[in-house]
Amino acid sequence: MEAVIQFELSKEYLERFQGALDEKDEQFIRASLDGVNPADITQLLYEFDTEESKYVIDLLEKQISAQIINDLDEDTRTEFLGAFTVTEISSFLDFLDSDDCVDILMELSLQTREEVVALIRDEQKARHIQELLHYDEDVAGGLMAKELIKCNLNWTIRQCIEEIRKQAETVQKIYSVYVVNNTGKLIGKVSLKKIIIAEDSAKIADIYDDDIVSVATHMDEDEVASIMRKYDLEAVPVINAKGRLVGRITIDDIVDVMQEQAEEERQLMAGISDDVEEDDSVWKLSKARLPWLIIGMVGGLMGARFIGLFEGDIALIPAVAFFIPLITATGGNVGIQSSSIVVQSLANPNVFAESMARRLVKVLTVAVLNGLILALLVFGSVILLYKEEFLAITVSIALFSVVLLASFMGTITPIILDKFGINPALASGPFITTANDLLGLGVYFTVANLLYGIF
Amino acid sequence: MEAVIQFELSKEYLERFQGALDEKDEQFIRASLDGVNPADITQLLYEFDTEESKYVIDLLEKQISAQIINDLDEDTRTEFLGAFTVTEISSFLDFLDSDDCVDILMELSLQTREEVVALIRDEQKARHIQELLHYDEDVAGGLMAKELIKCNLNWTIRQCIEEIRKQAETVQKIYSVYVVNNTGKLIGKVSLKKIIIAEDSAKIADIYDDDIVSVATHMDEDEVASIMRKYDLEAVPVINAKGRLVGRITIDDIVDVMQEQAEEERQLMAGISDDVEEDDSVWKLSKARLPWLIIGMVGGLMGARFIGLFEGDIALIPAVAFFIPLITATGGNVGIQSSSIVVQSLANPNVFAESMARRLVKVLTVAVLNGLILALLVFGSVILLYKEEFLAITVSIALFSVVLLASFMGTITPIILDKFGINPALASGPFITTANDLLGLGVYFTVANLLYGIF
Repeated sequence: MEAVIQFELSKEYLERFQGALDEKDEQFIRASLDGVNPADITQLLYEFDTEESKYVIDLLEKQISAQIINDLDEDTRTEFLGAFTVTEISSFLDFLDSDDCVDILMELSLQTREEVVALIRDEQKARHIQELLHYDEDVAGGLMAKELIKCNLNWTIRQCIEEIRKQAETVQKIYSVYVVNNTGKLIGKVSLKKIIIAEDSAKIADIYDDDIVSVATHMDEDEVASIMRKYDLEAVPVINAKGRLVGRITIDDIVDVMQEQAEEERQLMAGISDDVEEDDSVWKLSKARLPWLIIGMVGGLMGARFIGLFEGDIALIPAVAFFIPLITATGGNVGIQSSSIVVQSLANPNVFAESMARRLVKVLTVAVLNGLILALLVFGSVILLYKEEFLAITVSIALFSVVLLASFMGTITPIILDKFGINPALASGPFITTANDLLGLGVYFTVANLLYGIF
Repeated sequence: MEAVIQFELSKEYLERFQGALDEKDEQFIRASLDGVNPADITQLLYEFDTEESKYVIDLLEKQISAQIINDLDEDTRTEFLGAFTVTEISSFLDFLDSDDCVDILMELSLQTREEVVALIRDEQKARHIQELLHYDEDVAGGLMAKELIKCNLNWTIRQCIEEIRKQAETVQKIYSVYVVNNTGKLIGKVSLKKIIIAEDSAKIADIYDDDIVSVATHMDEDEVASIMRKYDLEAVPVINAKGRLVGRITIDDIVDVMQEQAEEERQLMAGISDDVEEDDSVWKLSKARLPWLIIGMVGGLMGARFIGLFEGDIALIPAVAFFIPLITATGGNVGIQSSSIVVQSLANPNVFAESMARRLVKVLTVAVLNGLILALLVFGSVILLYKEEFLAITVSIALFSVVLLASFMGTITPIILDKFGINPALASGPFITTANDLLGLGVYFTVANLLYGIF
């Protein structure tokens, strides 16, 4: 670990720091945070309340404070920003890239937002921010920053270096210089490596790389992520409908998008309806969990109603009731397995995905295979344990049918959700379990009723 | 879309290409793939069989072919490499970074691997690869590439640029030049931007940045990913136990790690035991799903045995059986919700995570709250629908207890799994559902038996 973190967050340090906060020991706080990476300070501040954190932030250099504000997670930051005046917030924005400024502004009320923007001293930056505020958060335009280095096709390397020098303060990280023609249309790029190696007098036109991947402002963030992954890009230029270069998306933002997607999917699969974390309040945690629990409960009550229709059968042969959990659990398991495979395909779409019909044929083949194996195992087990053939036949036929139906439902549900623009991972959550419970019960009791009627 | 893909994969093109393959129309294939990004060619080749793909690869420039081989997913590539001789494989490696070479080599048998390495012409590269082969795949050493640019603290910018020029062919992407002292110890970095801006005569010692984040060779890939995310890095240097710079990890590899983690978690949550995709064979898909289905089935049979103990009760009051699915489903839902929140905390560990005791107190508070709400709703519904007070009391007490127990199990299971080095997401899968089904049945029938005994 010593390899990574020069700044070690220990319990002892935390206590010492709390003491310094209580005594308002400016000197200790300043000295102990000197030279520490802002990302580490951010982590430290999560341990203190808003007022204490603000005290620390006010002691730091504005540039460091701005970085910390930028690093905070959304929930904490929204709460945090309330402690600052519009002038203070605006002064943080001076040190941040335009895309990060927009993220912060979006957490403010419309009025505060306008006041903050009005206070930004750098006119160009204010214009850039105004432009970015127009885009949806989840498209390329909403992810991009205006800070980038571009050069004209007709320039020489010397002019290009001059431009880099001029913009060095504004653009934190440069990977490539983007090449545009006289109308501002993006036509290629030159890597910094190439600029370093080339002669000063070399012309951009002679050395630039015209094989450049770009994305359109309106492209969905998921697609941007998949393109950056596919082509191993650390930055991608964004162009407008006319092909003009309007911004740049860097990989750190995409890494955050991927992280959010994974968390959203986990929550949908777990039936948690809000973006909650373990350290949220009890009330918030309860509220996020209740909706799916109630839906599950309603499903359970409907199931009870349904089983009630067969009260006579159960009174006669109570053993029928024994296998209810087996049937419903298997339906749930098969449904989630099926849907999650579809969700995976939808997340990594193949250009030539198999057709719907072929997909279903395959899913059902797998279901028949698994259903047969399970049904045989259960048949054998029931015969062995209960020595009742009718019961064994009933349970295994019902199990087989449930595997088939649950596979089918698990496959089409995410596809349908996706068609309607709903995150298909929802179909791998309590939704499919509740639906399959009811389905399973229906199949089971129908089969039982039919077979017992026959024999 | 035209903004992104100059090369459009259409059904028509695919058919035309298949025709060209059948007729061995070299000219068309060469012409239509000229200037196309290797990542796009890779995607195209997924549509053809190994023999056809090899035919295409043989027509392309070695450098492009190497990139395609590198881009292929693991399964396809392993199959694919069988079609090439050791000499051919070795010649691809000439064009790839050492970390990518190692990934490919790891898919070969030990003997083939040694033959291929022996054929690598560049001695330094062969040495690098030999070194990397010693590391586990999932630690920093197994992810890093040996290709990087380093300069001595005592150099000038001019010497540094000279080094970049010399290594330009070997190192594809340069973000920073790493600064080492005379013993090879990593002490800082200089960004390419700074190198471009600085005077040629400037000394590295005067301008380098000593605030550098590095990782140790043995660090787990998850931790590397979380560090690169935290500090927004596009590359991170890797150091050995002596602090010497031994390699570099780039963000594209970490993006792949994150992607794999998300897929692994989805599979664990869905109870799929192997890394399968929709287009895998029916047999492979069945095999990956069966283990958890069988475990669920065994759980179901145990449940049946257990319910069987209460056969008398059920014969007497069949209504008890009606609520089995409600109880088991709620237990399953609550368990998955609880475990997934813990899994999320474990994935983004906070330095000062709440203690186990406080965690459990909180979890149980949430459970009591949700349990009470659900129990009241169910009590009301059962009274309303069945007009049987004893039944309503039984079901709601059982439901409340199940919510509590399932929350507790859902919380401790992932923590215990994590302690034993098992991916805690396993606890959000069929595992928890099966366990909670049994738990729920136990609680339900015990409560029912007790209450009916009393009243």
